[in-house]
Amino acid sequence: MTLAASLLSGDRLSLARVLTQVENDTPVGRQILDELFPHAGKAHRIGITGAPGTGKSSLVNQLARHYRHTVDGSNPYRVAIVAVDPTSPFTGGAILGDRVRMRDLAGDPGVFIRSMASRGSLGGLAATTAAVVQVFDAAGFDVILIETVGAGQAEVDIARLAHTTLVVETPGLGDDIQAIKAGILEIADVLVINKADQPGAEAAERALRNMLEMNHPANGTGFWLPPVLGTVATEGRGVQELAAVIARHQEFLRQTGGWHVRERFLLQTEMETILHAELVSRWRAAFPEDAYRKILSDLVERRISPYQAVERLLS
Amino acid sequence: MTLAASLLSGDRLSLARVLTQVENDTPVGRQILDELFPHAGKAHRIGITGAPGTGKSSLVNQLARHYRHTVDGSNPYRVAIVAVDPTSPFTGGAILGDRVRMRDLAGDPGVFIRSMASRGSLGGLAATTAAVVQVFDAAGFDVILIETVGAGQAEVDIARLAHTTLVVETPGLGDDIQAIKAGILEIADVLVINKADQPGAEAAERALRNMLEMNHPANGTGFWLPPVLGTVATEGRGVQELAAVIARHQEFLRQTGGWHVRERFLLQTEMETILHAELVSRWRAAFPEDAYRKILSDLVERRISPYQAVERLLS
Repeated sequence: MTLAASLLSGDRLSLARVLTQVENDTPVGRQILDELFPHAGKAHRIGITGAPGTGKSSLVNQLARHYRHTVDGSNPYRVAIVAVDPTSPFTGGAILGDRVRMRDLAGDPGVFIRSMASRGSLGGLAATTAAVVQVFDAAGFDVILIETVGAGQAEVDIARLAHTTLVVETPGLGDDIQAIKAGILEIADVLVINKADQPGAEAAERALRNMLEMNHPANGTGFWLPPVLGTVATEGRGVQELAAVIARHQEFLRQTGGWHVRERFLLQTEMETILHAELVSRWRAAFPEDAYRKILSDLVERRISPYQAVERLLS
Repeated sequence: MTLAASLLSGDRLSLARVLTQVENDTPVGRQILDELFPHAGKAHRIGITGAPGTGKSSLVNQLARHYRHTVDGSNPYRVAIVAVDPTSPFTGGAILGDRVRMRDLAGDPGVFIRSMASRGSLGGLAATTAAVVQVFDAAGFDVILIETVGAGQAEVDIARLAHTTLVVETPGLGDDIQAIKAGILEIADVLVINKADQPGAEAAERALRNMLEMNHPANGTGFWLPPVLGTVATEGRGVQELAAVIARHQEFLRQTGGWHVRERFLLQTEMETILHAELVSRWRAAFPEDAYRKILSDLVERRISPYQAVERLLS
């Protein structure tokens, strides 16, 4: 049996092996991705993003428990967790350390947890995350929770992978943080105020709701206006309500055709990324090395501008 | 006289007009960039980045004053400030509002301030910032202060434009924020603890220094180990020391050849970005539209994988 077939039959060890091949972008990994591709496209991909310290990991933990136990006792969802840390710290990454909190889930055969840190380019990380998510999808996981830390372009790229994106905030964020909030609001389908038992939680919820009602492009159009929910993840409070909102968003996407639009956009983007890289590498292989070096050196000496250099390269 | 020539002669209104053309990426703007290109490459480009509320803008303000008054009374530096807000908020951006604090500089003909917010893609913002910085460079500004907010990929891209990057923190950031700090440390040439009169400042300085000594790849190699400095920007405290460290870093780059390496890397990246876009757009113009649509539809229906789609597109 091939590795892909063995994964499709539900073998956990094969899944782990495939993930390693795919993460390292090996030829075997690419071939397996091709084999798995027709089997993917069914899972509900849920993104969870927010600054460090907002309690994202606890919330992901609780959502996973909920999907394992509450949805349907006789036939619970299979849940994959992909924890992505694009901040590429010297020391390994806080988000990876957080995984120890998930020990209670780790023994459950219906849960698979994979942590990924940035190695090299952030663009590469988004591509690798997409591939890993596809593997879980083909392997038959019903829900894939994609957790990312921070508020930058990497999160936006990774959020594009999700059908439903939760942005997690905490109460008491000063006005200072307004700019970051505004940036991340654009990717949110659901806003979660975690640690809602802390002072200022209701005010934060109200402020976010006002901001959305004033500024969100969807407001008044009948489209999805991101709901604002309070949770206390450490105690599991609000998690059931959150899961209900997530299910409602999934239903909304299916009814409006948004689900298909997101799938289409994602696949087209993935194809174009590969196409562009391939076009560049073919052109580069065909272009004489010494001529390239000469043009580059003229550029660096400021004899020609970047646009003029490209004109010469393509003439 | 052409607009470019008029800018090179020091005309402020022409500078403003050129900046607008370049920001809007007009054909005129591109042509002017080509004309200005041989005149650029002299300015010291200094990046200042950090989370909202760290006092970056005040620090930039103080550095600008310092360069205007303290360096050499008879022949002060000309200073350009480029304030970039990549968080693309609904409401216009906190960093733009901060510019009112710079009113005392605005009357000085040796200072030019330009604020830029994200419109559309973040990649585009980095390219536009690079172009704007080149215009200031050609116009003869000695120092260009590039201020960005946040901690994401956009900052990393914009930091690449700088010879010297300052990362601004404040005391009392919890352990929570460790991940973001670690991410941004990789781009820092100088670490500034602003609001150093607040409790916890010394502890924060010590923690950052320890972290750097333990983890920084440059440690023990004779390369540049980012110094950690305390400042109180609102009172101008520590600004002179900071300017001295910046000058020391510039000297280090010149002596080690790092200056030339950064210039070369930047120009090559700029050229390759233009080249790649052009390769893709030429290929796309030559490929039959209906064949492209057919392959895309096979992909979206999951009959072929993204890699298989690209194989067909290029066969």
